[in-house]
Amino acid sequence: MHSGNQHYIVARPAYTERSFKEQNQQVERYHKTAADHLRMYFRCSTAKAKRIFSTFLPITSWLPTYNVKEWLLNDIVSGVSTGLVSVLQGLAFALLVSVPAGYGLYSAFFPVLTYFLLGTSKHLSVGPFPVVSLMVGTVVDRMVSDGDTGVNTTIFPADMSKEDRQVWVAASVTMLTGIFQLGLGLLQVGFIVIYLSDPMISGFTTAAAIHVLVSQLKFVLQLTVPGFSGPLAIIYTLKYIFSHIQETNIADLVISLVIMVVVFIVKEINDRFKSKLPVPIPIEVIMTIITTSVSYAFNFNQKYQVSIVGNLTSGYQAPLTPNTAVLQQSFGDAFSVAIVGFAVAFSVSKVYAIKHDYVIDGNQELVAFGISNIFCGAFRGFAASTALSRTAVQESTGGKTQVAGLISAVIVMIVTLAIGFLLAPLPTSVLGALVIINLKGMLMQFREIGVLWKKDKYDCLVWLIAFIAAVLLGLDIGLGVGVGVELLTVVFRTQFPQCSVLANISGTDIYRNRKDYVNIYEPEGVKIFRCPSPIFFANVEFLRTKLTEAIGFNPLRILRKRNKALRKIKKMLQKGELMITSKGYIHTTDGSNLNDSENEDSNSIDELDKAIDMKELPMRIDWKSPLPASIPVPSVETHSIVLDFAAVSFLDVSAMKGLKSILKEFVRIEIDIYIAACDNLILEKLERCGFFDDEITPDIFFLTIHDAMLCILDRHEPSNSLSFISDKVQGTKETLHSEGDLKKRECVTPGCSYFDDCI
Amino acid sequence: MHSGNQHYIVARPAYTERSFKEQNQQVERYHKTAADHLRMYFRCSTAKAKRIFSTFLPITSWLPTYNVKEWLLNDIVSGVSTGLVSVLQGLAFALLVSVPAGYGLYSAFFPVLTYFLLGTSKHLSVGPFPVVSLMVGTVVDRMVSDGDTGVNTTIFPADMSKEDRQVWVAASVTMLTGIFQLGLGLLQVGFIVIYLSDPMISGFTTAAAIHVLVSQLKFVLQLTVPGFSGPLAIIYTLKYIFSHIQETNIADLVISLVIMVVVFIVKEINDRFKSKLPVPIPIEVIMTIITTSVSYAFNFNQKYQVSIVGNLTSGYQAPLTPNTAVLQQSFGDAFSVAIVGFAVAFSVSKVYAIKHDYVIDGNQELVAFGISNIFCGAFRGFAASTALSRTAVQESTGGKTQVAGLISAVIVMIVTLAIGFLLAPLPTSVLGALVIINLKGMLMQFREIGVLWKKDKYDCLVWLIAFIAAVLLGLDIGLGVGVGVELLTVVFRTQFPQCSVLANISGTDIYRNRKDYVNIYEPEGVKIFRCPSPIFFANVEFLRTKLTEAIGFNPLRILRKRNKALRKIKKMLQKGELMITSKGYIHTTDGSNLNDSENEDSNSIDELDKAIDMKELPMRIDWKSPLPASIPVPSVETHSIVLDFAAVSFLDVSAMKGLKSILKEFVRIEIDIYIAACDNLILEKLERCGFFDDEITPDIFFLTIHDAMLCILDRHEPSNSLSFISDKVQGTKETLHSEGDLKKRECVTPGCSYFDDCI
Repeated sequence: MHSGNQHYIVARPAYTERSFKEQNQQVERYHKTAADHLRMYFRCSTAKAKRIFSTFLPITSWLPTYNVKEWLLNDIVSGVSTGLVSVLQGLAFALLVSVPAGYGLYSAFFPVLTYFLLGTSKHLSVGPFPVVSLMVGTVVDRMVSDGDTGVNTTIFPADMSKEDRQVWVAASVTMLTGIFQLGLGLLQVGFIVIYLSDPMISGFTTAAAIHVLVSQLKFVLQLTVPGFSGPLAIIYTLKYIFSHIQETNIADLVISLVIMVVVFIVKEINDRFKSKLPVPIPIEVIMTIITTSVSYAFNFNQKYQVSIVGNLTSGYQAPLTPNTAVLQQSFGDAFSVAIVGFAVAFSVSKVYAIKHDYVIDGNQELVAFGISNIFCGAFRGFAASTALSRTAVQESTGGKTQVAGLISAVIVMIVTLAIGFLLAPLPTSVLGALVIINLKGMLMQFREIGVLWKKDKYDCLVWLIAFIAAVLLGLDIGLGVGVGVELLTVVFRTQFPQCSVLANISGTDIYRNRKDYVNIYEPEGVKIFRCPSPIFFANVEFLRTKLTEAIGFNPLRILRKRNKALRKIKKMLQKGELMITSKGYIHTTDGSNLNDSENEDSNSIDELDKAIDMKELPMRIDWKSPLPASIPVPSVETHSIVLDFAAVSFLDVSAMKGLKSILKEFVRIEIDIYIAACDNLILEKLERCGFFDDEITPDIFFLTIHDAMLCILDRHEPSNSLSFISDKVQGTKETLHSEGDLKKRECVTPGCSYFDDCI
Repeated sequence: MHSGNQHYIVARPAYTERSFKEQNQQVERYHKTAADHLRMYFRCSTAKAKRIFSTFLPITSWLPTYNVKEWLLNDIVSGVSTGLVSVLQGLAFALLVSVPAGYGLYSAFFPVLTYFLLGTSKHLSVGPFPVVSLMVGTVVDRMVSDGDTGVNTTIFPADMSKEDRQVWVAASVTMLTGIFQLGLGLLQVGFIVIYLSDPMISGFTTAAAIHVLVSQLKFVLQLTVPGFSGPLAIIYTLKYIFSHIQETNIADLVISLVIMVVVFIVKEINDRFKSKLPVPIPIEVIMTIITTSVSYAFNFNQKYQVSIVGNLTSGYQAPLTPNTAVLQQSFGDAFSVAIVGFAVAFSVSKVYAIKHDYVIDGNQELVAFGISNIFCGAFRGFAASTALSRTAVQESTGGKTQVAGLISAVIVMIVTLAIGFLLAPLPTSVLGALVIINLKGMLMQFREIGVLWKKDKYDCLVWLIAFIAAVLLGLDIGLGVGVGVELLTVVFRTQFPQCSVLANISGTDIYRNRKDYVNIYEPEGVKIFRCPSPIFFANVEFLRTKLTEAIGFNPLRILRKRNKALRKIKKMLQKGELMITSKGYIHTTDGSNLNDSENEDSNSIDELDKAIDMKELPMRIDWKSPLPASIPVPSVETHSIVLDFAAVSFLDVSAMKGLKSILKEFVRIEIDIYIAACDNLILEKLERCGFFDDEITPDIFFLTIHDAMLCILDRHEPSNSLSFISDKVQGTKETLHSEGDLKKRECVTPGCSYFDDCI
């Protein structure tokens, strides 16, 4: 018995797909129809109702099993730490939204409450996220401009303060964002985040970091910059800043620079001595406390005109209804915010879900964020997602469940209700500096360009285009462009496949690119062509061109020449200029009047494309031998073409049409087409679509290239001697040779039978 | 010697990709770099200069070889017939553009002159095309509205008549269209037409037919309908028509119905007796002459208020400059017109190029159409493309070259300059009726829905969405939506591939879906998983899920459990609770305190994901046998996974990252991964991108599934007896069996060597 050795020794019948199916018993399988799936989906049961209930209210499944003894202390510690970060980030990110800093605390409070009830992630810290905040801020700047452009003044009551307008716009956009997220969640389309590929997200967030950086310059330099919006807004903003650079407040600039340098250095220390420090130094909180005290002590605001946070709106305000005009004019922006906000939160929560081995439900997350944003917007907050850094704090300080999130919300609430006044002397430039220094990670993504360029040019292109579009055209359009380009790359990658002509590696059943190997075997008249990609509307013509190049002639041209020759022969037979004997044709005239009929047939050119019809002829014409009356027809050396379909993962309607016409052209000039290693699903589809007819039959499909090759050799070179036994398998060869008598053309398998019909 | 029979008998070493390369000499190939291609592209020579010259002025290559004796008569006959059709279509399609009928004659004249010089098609009849005319008409209606919306009045001089405004807008859009086409041609992007797939074009043109139909209703019913534009314009138009239906001019309606019925019947006769009629009956020309005479004789215009064509602008007018405001506001429309106009003309000319066996140059066609449209617009015509019916006339009446086109232009010129007044009494409802009756072919495309539904659901979806979007949102947006959806289908098709688990078909080297066949062989612990599509950002997670489902467990979870167990064992060894003897572990305590350390490690969860490190242990742990102190670790039956990559035609960066993490997870729990039939280009890419490291080596790549399987069997069941010799190959089996001694584990090939390093 020969197994367990490293020799590949196989003896089996050569198979076409059809003969293989006939000889191997198949299982009758019931394939579920769409109706079955629908029935499954809508079937009702108590268990299903319970499952749906706990899906829509995840807290009902985890809170009853809450392990108070072991988890509560952890959650409290984590919640307090996260709460401190939340307060600071809330204040800072509110500047990005162009609303007073205090509203950032609302965004760090309201969404957490609903997420606690509805969310499926245990470690996510819900709240403001710089990119999302900036995207909301773009809308605010567009709708509430500093100058009076006069267009948008009609959408607000005349007596409304600019601040209230800004808050109203931010809240309205946030609610619309929530509505989109809720809608997508209920439609169960949480999977759309898979369309945001890594290079696209990386390019997009890097561009967002540039936008955040530019938007914070005005706080660091303490300039009054009008809110530019639309494409190229960043260019106009930079132009404005540089033309007003002499108005910079030096005190603010110095404070910012000091903060940035100190925070940068301490963060580097935190990073380097990660393992040795029990907890990272909370340098941002420390610097905030120091600068607030110093600013209060030396009265920076009065003395140096340093802009300060001022009194935070104390307490909470009654909910408001969204501004319908804003809703109408911020459709695209809100959709982008909904997608980006969700995508960021989902990817962060997935990281921790994998780490701690629990399951995140994408659709439920969308619902949770949708309701959270509607709720938050109603209470004058702005769109929430998550900040990676804050979630990292929540997880690393030991948070076990969303109870930690709840505690952090309580801390934020305490600041809002009780101790907010302490933060009044904090300079806004400090917040700006803290935002800028936290961009380091996002800006470091520039290094990916080089890495991607080496790895994959298309992905690098996606990064660059997403980045440039998002920087120049704005984040909402940039996201659209990025997704579009990224999806296009899938088409590009398959559009110009590297086709190759294969040859047999001598002594084996292996076929490789003939240009790559020395020791190859290519039988006369056989071409093996590999299509290394799916075939669809955008590449079927390209493949046809490549195949024609590989074969070396245009089959349609040959067919027309042969049909013309045939017509002449028929005519000569009619006129008696040609005689037929048992040995072939005998030409009785000199053939000088052969070319006169060249032109009269021009209108019947369609007929030349039809299959060659020799029924009326007394004998078949052999196109390889010279024709009578020296009618010129180019001779064709190729008799068989094998198409390797192993990598063809799908065919669309255009491809089927194109493929059929290609195959027909070859079949009509008596070149046999063999298709090898085609996926069974594609074969089934071809049969279902009526691909096959008299000329193209399912018998052209072979299991492997080698099966097809054996069939070809059997047909064309039965006397030729060939060995597919490698010299490298010692001893085997000789024995197999002696088996010659056993294998002497006693072919009972139907493998190659279809060719007999053709002849 | 055994060849020429239908048995697949092969004996060769089992190969990994690496061993195969080592044992088969490869050719050193120089791959052209991007620099080489650039150098080729910019290399200069006289021949190249000549080629470029004749590329840009194709007439220089075909006119000198014009065969006056044989072709001129054909061209004249064809030109006159085509000219008559041109005149009628020009008048009719001008109504679609909302300009006076006479301007249609300009569109049938000017572009032909430039195309004669620049075009590469010999049979194309250049001139107005209904869909393109309608798209231009949409812009005209938007810019020049019947009511005074007040917005667009500023862009025209106050004293300009409505008619002149309409002509100016149409001419401006046409010039912009030409500029786009010329630009695309010079940028050599003629290939973009491949993105217009057949189902998309079919859905789009059907929608266009609906628009044309609705736009002609006002002429047939003789109603004054204001020009609606933008999304849902067709709904508003229909609403308006139905609410004013009582104002219908009965005389016009009757004339139209009579014309439609007669033309329809005669066209059916033409179709049915195609072969018997020498030329099709020119029913449209006949009906036009009859109705014009009758209208003149009975003075329809005065007696029945029938609207007539009236006096055509006699002669030609001086060229005009485009209206810059129109140019700015019709960017999107002009681009759509440019694409649609070119796509239609290109596809029609390709049909005849294939039929008559000559070559069409897509980029030169773009240049030719661009210049033609700029020229035509400058002389107050509207955008030209081709009408399929007119080109069919030109070709079927024997046209040989564009000289026929030139003759047809002369006919049009004669009508414009001399006999145009004869057409003055022609009722416009006749033209409307002729346009409508000619929509039959386009409207018949509705039948494609059913065909596509049966053949390919995705293509059917593309058809429907392109159709609905183009009907409801307008032709320009509809085209964009159609292209977008069509490109998305490429992603969809590969996104949720039908993965399958394969099994060996007994007695062969063939692997098929295990659910499909009865007589299969699946060795214990081996899973063969087939990825039937390229892997990229949108499906890598889906494949991971499918693979985990197929294998039946989550490798990461197993790894963590093992690492936890390992940690406990190390601790017990330290504490002396575990002893090691030559026979294994001996547990010395009762293990009651095993679970207390469960929680303390929660923060070092990252470590649990690392490779299992047994260096510090005095002996290796066998995970399959029960662990000491009954530490619970799930046992894993699978020892080898084969991934069939035959259909993986590309991998992007996200896929490489995802694949690597999947492979690592399996390797770390000591499951061997084998990748079979991977394309060599992908393998090269993986090597270039630093995919491989200590854990994942290039040795996991095998030539075929069977090679991998032989290696697995060698490793895990060397004593087991297996036969890959089919019973269906008579006689061979016994002989091969007797060869057992020769093949007895004298493995000298390096095929399987890498596993020795692992153990």
